[in-house]
Amino acid sequence: MTELAKHKQIELDLLKKLKDGTYPPQTLIPREVDLMAHYQVSRPTVRQAIQSLVDQGWLEKRKRRGTMVKARKIAQAFTQVIEGYNDEMQSKGLKPQTKVLLFQAETATAEVAEQLGLTVGAPVYKLVRLRYANQQPIVLLTSYLPGTALVDPATVDFTQMSLYATLKQAGLDVTRVRRRLDVLTADETTADLLNVATGAPLFYFHTQGLTAAEVPVEYSIAKYRGDVNTFVMDLKRED
Amino acid sequence: MTELAKHKQIELDLLKKLKDGTYPPQTLIPREVDLMAHYQVSRPTVRQAIQSLVDQGWLEKRKRRGTMVKARKIAQAFTQVIEGYNDEMQSKGLKPQTKVLLFQAETATAEVAEQLGLTVGAPVYKLVRLRYANQQPIVLLTSYLPGTALVDPATVDFTQMSLYATLKQAGLDVTRVRRRLDVLTADETTADLLNVATGAPLFYFHTQGLTAAEVPVEYSIAKYRGDVNTFVMDLKRED
Repeated sequence: MTELAKHKQIELDLLKKLKDGTYPPQTLIPREVDLMAHYQVSRPTVRQAIQSLVDQGWLEKRKRRGTMVKARKIAQAFTQVIEGYNDEMQSKGLKPQTKVLLFQAETATAEVAEQLGLTVGAPVYKLVRLRYANQQPIVLLTSYLPGTALVDPATVDFTQMSLYATLKQAGLDVTRVRRRLDVLTADETTADLLNVATGAPLFYFHTQGLTAAEVPVEYSIAKYRGDVNTFVMDLKRED
Repeated sequence: MTELAKHKQIELDLLKKLKDGTYPPQTLIPREVDLMAHYQVSRPTVRQAIQSLVDQGWLEKRKRRGTMVKARKIAQAFTQVIEGYNDEMQSKGLKPQTKVLLFQAETATAEVAEQLGLTVGAPVYKLVRLRYANQQPIVLLTSYLPGTALVDPATVDFTQMSLYATLKQAGLDVTRVRRRLDVLTADETTADLLNVATGAPLFYFHTQGLTAAEVPVEYSIAKYRGDVNTFVMDLKRED
């Protein structure tokens, strides 16, 4: 076996351990000296194997700490984002949780009024939620609903109920969403809530939810952590 | 007319001028004192009108310079991104331009080999392009092609020819793309090329282009400026 084959062989063995959970996300892998002893190879060989896995996004080097297994991103299909958060996370084997940070009556700003088809100053509800997967914050979500949308908001427990299920019960089933995607960096408050560094990149969605009769009943602003979320799509060319 | 109505009226007049191009993107609007004289109102009234347009994303305040008209974002439909860049920009009334920064033969890294269905070290072409709309850089695009994909790469002028048109001429028509979207912040080099600040948020696409026979013939990495691009989608709920 040549030296070149060795680093590749170690890389594949480490990769297997990353995939099967021997080295779980956000833990350190063994130190270089321990890997040298285990595989009976030189330091450059171990380093080459590790560097390749760093380049592929599996590992990251942390100053003075060692080499850490990166958090696996949650891959979400763009065509599935209209599904409920809980269903989506559970289908991926992740434990969802929702905290309601705020739920109150307000008056519509120009932006909210336009998106909900209301006049400026009309009554609306504002619902701010922080959603988790496996105890890790994933998305900060601010939703506006027409003040007429819900019969008795005080009775709705949004830590358990999905917004779309609640709207459906009120006879306002969302069947279509218009969504715009931007990117932004986390300000201090957002960073604190999402447990990322200030300035970390985020996905920034604006969503308008419509009923079958094209009545807007939801306007939401979502900030998804960039480090743990990824969105995938499969597009066929139209001729 | 009450003071409340006045600031709203000024806001709407300014908005009209923003929309009709009287105040073009990336120029300063008149100073507060000039707007006060023009509309015959107090400073707080002018400020209230301006603040509302700042909140709506039309204007931004620049230290010591004044109030600037923000660059309008280029809205792109997710379902259209498989279209050629030139067609897409022209359909929006924007003048497209492409600079080829690099086009050379290389050997496939593990990542490129996996995406193109090749063995590590196999010959590939690397094509790095910077694409513009109306003289403004929009996206930095690095594409890898199998070394066998093009008959004579030296003869292809990628400032004029689209990659997909070139592949089609070589009998490798891309009919489906698998795309992954992440976000990242601009490093120094990327920031310089895209004319944004270091740390500015970017869309980060990875795309695998496949022929009808499911043969991968393209692997591309695209960094879109977050400040001038936005992506829109319209999703119907599936029952």
